[in-house]
Amino acid sequence: MVERQRADARRNYERILAVAEEEVAAKGADASLEQIARVAGVGSATVRRHFPTRRALLEAVSQQRIEALCARARELADRKSNNRAGEGRKALLEWLGEVVAYCVTARGLAAALSYDEGHDPLGGNSCAAALIEAGEPLLRSAAREGAVAPRTTVEDLITLAVGLALATEHHPEPTARAEALLALTVAGISPERG
Amino acid sequence: MVERQRADARRNYERILAVAEEEVAAKGADASLEQIARVAGVGSATVRRHFPTRRALLEAVSQQRIEALCARARELADRKSNNRAGEGRKALLEWLGEVVAYCVTARGLAAALSYDEGHDPLGGNSCAAALIEAGEPLLRSAAREGAVAPRTTVEDLITLAVGLALATEHHPEPTARAEALLALTVAGISPERG
Repeated sequence: MVERQRADARRNYERILAVAEEEVAAKGADASLEQIARVAGVGSATVRRHFPTRRALLEAVSQQRIEALCARARELADRKSNNRAGEGRKALLEWLGEVVAYCVTARGLAAALSYDEGHDPLGGNSCAAALIEAGEPLLRSAAREGAVAPRTTVEDLITLAVGLALATEHHPEPTARAEALLALTVAGISPERG
Repeated sequence: MVERQRADARRNYERILAVAEEEVAAKGADASLEQIARVAGVGSATVRRHFPTRRALLEAVSQQRIEALCARARELADRKSNNRAGEGRKALLEWLGEVVAYCVTARGLAAALSYDEGHDPLGGNSCAAALIEAGEPLLRSAAREGAVAPRTTVEDLITLAVGLALATEHHPEPTARAEALLALTVAGISPERG
């Protein structure tokens, strides 16, 4: 009996998540929770039981993409293990470019990654935390080469990526626009000449 | 009779705008148009007649702040007319810092400034256009000093400012966070060493 209830709950969860993925892809981070409940054929209370906050829902929807970006960070960190000069910088910037591209194309991802500790009753932001952890070795390698502005953190880079995605959301060519602005951010608007 | 209708329409507009300012300050760019109509004591159709799009409403709400930032750009452009070395860069960065600070604190402003030409049936974005025009002399002076990355536009700078504001919106100290990220963007995450 308990097993059957568990199986039912699991099926409910999966159906809600599948519907949520479609709604977020179509409407972005503001997708209506009521609409998701309606299409999934469950009550709003059921949606809220599985996803107590909008962020929890966006994080679940973004899970696979976050995992792909984490895997990509590990791959790039391994690749540049040959330690040739400049490889650390190259790997970090390649990864950062992919984070920006994902945030631009995967609706809801930028919102899921934006800082939320103070607002989320569950506390923390597991999506951002996983991505920060995965990016650390890339940042360290680039920093060892002296290629990164002092005191830069992976969180800084992710927040900048999120900002580029959010600011270009309504542009007719958001990916190209975000890439151009990322290049400007990497080079610096107006670096001090020492 | 016509004059009385005009006076009524004007009063309606002003009441709706005053309510809209409060709602946007409280709820941000997603403030409910229905709620604004309700509090202003008019129908939704009346709100839509004055503000055919959400952007039109956000632009009206942001008007005074945009004007203040435009005036500030002119003031700074005049101030550095003494042409001492480095003054152009200083003035541009001071202005950019104020654009970021305004976008962080004035809810709805970042949304009003974000690119929208393709989506807005009225076309264009008069808020952004005014700000771009006002910022041009500052950018030109800094560029003449060779202090700005080649091909940078005022639109780039405003889009970056909007992105910083949107990405730090949920941070417990958004102004400090956005300022730190602006400094990183000005210096460059990883400028190429020539």
